Amino acid sequence: MSTLAEQLINTEAHKSIFESAVRQLPLPVCAAFGSSEKPQPVSFSSTDRVLSTKDSDAVAKQFPKTVAASGNVVLTSAGSRTTSIKGKRVAVLFSGGPAAGGHNVVCGLKRVLGAGNTLLGVKAGPKGLLEGSLFEISDADVDFVLNTGGFNFLGSDRTKIKSDAQFAQVRETCIKHNLDAIVVVGGDDSNTNAAVLAESLFRGVKADGSGVQVIGVPKTIDGDLQLGDLLAISFGFDTATRIYSEMVGNILQDTSSSLKYWHFVKLMGRSASHVALEVALQTKPAITIISEEVSSRKMSLASIIDSIAKIVVERSHKGMNYGVLLAPEGLIEFIPEMNAMIAELNDVLAHEATAFAAVADDAKAAFVESKLSADNAKLLASLPHYIVAMLLAERDSHGNLQVSLIPTEQLLIDMTKARVKELDAKVPFAAHSHFLGYEGRCGAPTLFDAAYTYNLGLTAGSLILDGHSGYMATITGLTSGGVPQAIPLAGLLNIERRHGQDEFVIEKALVRMDSPAMKFFASRRDEWAASDLFASPGPRQFWGPTTHQQPISVALNSGSKSLMFKIG
Amino acid sequence: MSTLAEQLINTEAHKSIFESAVRQLPLPVCAAFGSSEKPQPVSFSSTDRVLSTKDSDAVAKQFPKTVAASGNVVLTSAGSRTTSIKGKRVAVLFSGGPAAGGHNVVCGLKRVLGAGNTLLGVKAGPKGLLEGSLFEISDADVDFVLNTGGFNFLGSDRTKIKSDAQFAQVRETCIKHNLDAIVVVGGDDSNTNAAVLAESLFRGVKADGSGVQVIGVPKTIDGDLQLGDLLAISFGFDTATRIYSEMVGNILQDTSSSLKYWHFVKLMGRSASHVALEVALQTKPAITIISEEVSSRKMSLASIIDSIAKIVVERSHKGMNYGVLLAPEGLIEFIPEMNAMIAELNDVLAHEATAFAAVADDAKAAFVESKLSADNAKLLASLPHYIVAMLLAERDSHGNLQVSLIPTEQLLIDMTKARVKELDAKVPFAAHSHFLGYEGRCGAPTLFDAAYTYNLGLTAGSLILDGHSGYMATITGLTSGGVPQAIPLAGLLNIERRHGQDEFVIEKALVRMDSPAMKFFASRRDEWAASDLFASPGPRQFWGPTTHQQPISVALNSGSKSLMFKIG
Repeated sequence: MSTLAEQLINTEAHKSIFESAVRQLPLPVCAAFGSSEKPQPVSFSSTDRVLSTKDSDAVAKQFPKTVAASGNVVLTSAGSRTTSIKGKRVAVLFSGGPAAGGHNVVCGLKRVLGAGNTLLGVKAGPKGLLEGSLFEISDADVDFVLNTGGFNFLGSDRTKIKSDAQFAQVRETCIKHNLDAIVVVGGDDSNTNAAVLAESLFRGVKADGSGVQVIGVPKTIDGDLQLGDLLAISFGFDTATRIYSEMVGNILQDTSSSLKYWHFVKLMGRSASHVALEVALQTKPAITIISEEVSSRKMSLASIIDSIAKIVVERSHKGMNYGVLLAPEGLIEFIPEMNAMIAELNDVLAHEATAFAAVADDAKAAFVESKLSADNAKLLASLPHYIVAMLLAERDSHGNLQVSLIPTEQLLIDMTKARVKELDAKVPFAAHSHFLGYEGRCGAPTLFDAAYTYNLGLTAGSLILDGHSGYMATITGLTSGGVPQAIPLAGLLNIERRHGQDEFVIEKALVRMDSPAMKFFASRRDEWAASDLFASPGPRQFWGPTTHQQPISVALNSGSKSLMFKIG
Repeated sequence: MSTLAEQLINTEAHKSIFESAVRQLPLPVCAAFGSSEKPQPVSFSSTDRVLSTKDSDAVAKQFPKTVAASGNVVLTSAGSRTTSIKGKRVAVLFSGGPAAGGHNVVCGLKRVLGAGNTLLGVKAGPKGLLEGSLFEISDADVDFVLNTGGFNFLGSDRTKIKSDAQFAQVRETCIKHNLDAIVVVGGDDSNTNAAVLAESLFRGVKADGSGVQVIGVPKTIDGDLQLGDLLAISFGFDTATRIYSEMVGNILQDTSSSLKYWHFVKLMGRSASHVALEVALQTKPAITIISEEVSSRKMSLASIIDSIAKIVVERSHKGMNYGVLLAPEGLIEFIPEMNAMIAELNDVLAHEATAFAAVADDAKAAFVESKLSADNAKLLASLPHYIVAMLLAERDSHGNLQVSLIPTEQLLIDMTKARVKELDAKVPFAAHSHFLGYEGRCGAPTLFDAAYTYNLGLTAGSLILDGHSGYMATITGLTSGGVPQAIPLAGLLNIERRHGQDEFVIEKALVRMDSPAMKFFASRRDEWAASDLFASPGPRQFWGPTTHQQPISVALNSGSKSLMFKIG
């Protein structure tokens, strides 16, 4: 028998014991795909649902081919395909930040395309599509990455395909690799890009006049790509929030063990607070800030700090000199007065650049305050010195402040400390800060995300074999077996003013104040603040009795009777 | 059927689905305890192993009663007790930072003491012992906390019981609650405290002249409480390192997915690098710094930075502009020149306090450099400005620098960035920093820690029923079923100079350069630096095929043939 050291070296290429084991997990498939051993492609038929936005007329003009072909009608699976398609060459790419389950999309695609068609991987995201960096994906490849986390099998980047020169490059890649279809795995921006690509490549790409089909797959840990019952949640959200929830649960358990610290935890997600809301529902901390509520109630920074400090003081008076606060990464941008102040600050710094530069460092803040309106000057003066220094110093190439650089969690700690002291100087307040982000994007997918993404891959592949373009794959009915469906991308597009011009975009789904998840949270939070009613949801499990949970917010918003999902 | 919202509220008191499920997990017991359904106390007999340190003679003089009673001889289980003991009143307390498995120690104690004896919990650590805050622990209590993480069932603190007044308070508590024994669950310092308490309470505490037995249980996530085959590892280390390893594995997977970031991760553990070493063995990142190696090789900060920067550059030249670095929390204190510089700096600031205060802020660094020896001045000048500012500003009440406040991970990032630029200005270097600490102390215990701590509780309870005092409970043979044993605490004590006087302490077990785990790491690290051979160990599992792993470093150091543990 070899030594342990020899065994460890010999198995390095197989990664970890865990990864070896999860590769063997069975994956359920929607009934439409037949047996999970050998899933078969489905064909699609039109439903009676037509999607539209306020800008649908403008979209129809800009996307005439895809809109004419789809009529913005939602498709649903219509049983197994009766004719077999062979010889298709399909490329798949990851776009944007990684999310758990991307590898299973590729596995689903590979298996549904079968031996008769070719699946190519695009290296390192959209940039690889421009550069023509593609390679053929083998059965062994997908067996190796099945159920593993990350996007590392292909890599990813954030290149946006917008210019004519870029579209020409994509066409060149399509011709060079004789592509019939491209699958874009990405978030709202990437699926917008997929819609544009679908229109651009609809026909006339190849010598015979044919086009290249484009299918999107809904990915983002932020959870802001949603469409009611048609798209309950994007993939990656469940895994990321379960990872964050375990960490927050562990920290909560630590606070009531060591009895002396507050922990302020910032959670990844710039635009929407779905992540913070889900983690709150999983763990029940004393305080959770929801950006959309701050915005809709027009809360000031001072009022946010005051409400936090009051909870700190009340808990302390009950003997609880500890607790956990959750805050979304993008909070600052949702505080109306902060946005207004930063906007005026940007103007002042642009218009008074020369005078500002001439002022001594320690007089710069006073100089700027003298140029701001009274309210904004007062707000700026209320901020900790390091935030003021950052607000005065850091500008991106467009002259805008990089709000993401603001250490929100430290700002909240410092301002809460000051306010607690005002409210009751005898209350101790010692706090640690955390930022949970990168840890959650690339963990092995939960069984929910693993099954969901595998079936999304089967759906995307089926849409290609069935000849469709300009759709996003989706699985509906996630608690009742799952149905492969397709959402017409052009039916999601709105016009937004960005960088001074109109752009077609898929609107981000924010947390709605009237959603069941938000209302449930709002009904419970006072009790969570007043007590030690936290939960530790533990690490996600891949075997045993606790594996089949869906996100609590998704279950509440979709009217589920239980937390269990059921695919297959 | 109730709505999901109603279900969620109704089950809040049960904590999470996960916690409800882990409470039901069966716990194996060492053969000596009989059946796992109804474990029975064992009696103990002497082995032929006598423990000693360089200071054993001095210890014998200071601890005459316990040393006379134990002879510093290791005890081993000698089968089930033939006589039943009833009426004992035993208190258990958690001391110091929390670690996963503490609750199972209490469960093991409760079950082995049985209905005939009383188990009391001490609230909020040693302070609770001084204050007499005890409560009776019920069967329902231990059923509820079984297999859950944290110390929150009792709470903990870091009070050291040292003064005569404190010992008098402990005696008072013993009398007030009519205690027969105290179990101290803690690390090296807490077990030292247990040794002192055992001697102090050996006899003559109660009216009948009897004493109070004291038993220690080895806890610390740092892993620096070890004693070869007698104590392979303290409890909590496995769970903490598995939690950190999942996070680091996820981050590694992210680096090779998004292809553009380095992540510098600081890991909890001030004194020893066992945690960093174990996480490195689990995940195989590009770079791991081991404090003990820095110290033993007398590495300078510049040489550490240079070796990091070279790996960054070499990876970049192969197209890998990303990677992960692990650094132990206490690194700075292990760099000989940093220690020397800080010592001289402390002297200068103390002796030149008036002159220093008179110097303008932006001239303070130059002033101090002019007072330091040439080497130390050069080293100080090489550090980033915020570190210099911290070195000049922050002193604790003894005039010492609080080294733990130094943001080591940011220091390493900034100095590496500068050095990379010198080596090859074309190499991009964008880095994020992390500190993994509190997340790992209170997770639900791995099955290793869960089984280990439950059996430690059974052992501690058996030692009490068998009439012993001044021992630390241990389980040996963790891969071959497990044997309850006991280590005489006085046999571990050394004399160390602390705060200007001799103190008896249990020496921390540091990473040895000649240990199998360190040698294995050293033999593999160049390959890990040169490649993308990382592993993602995944979240710890409580069901399924991957549950029974022990720490890799423990397996290597104990000469195991496999990573599997076997208790029961």
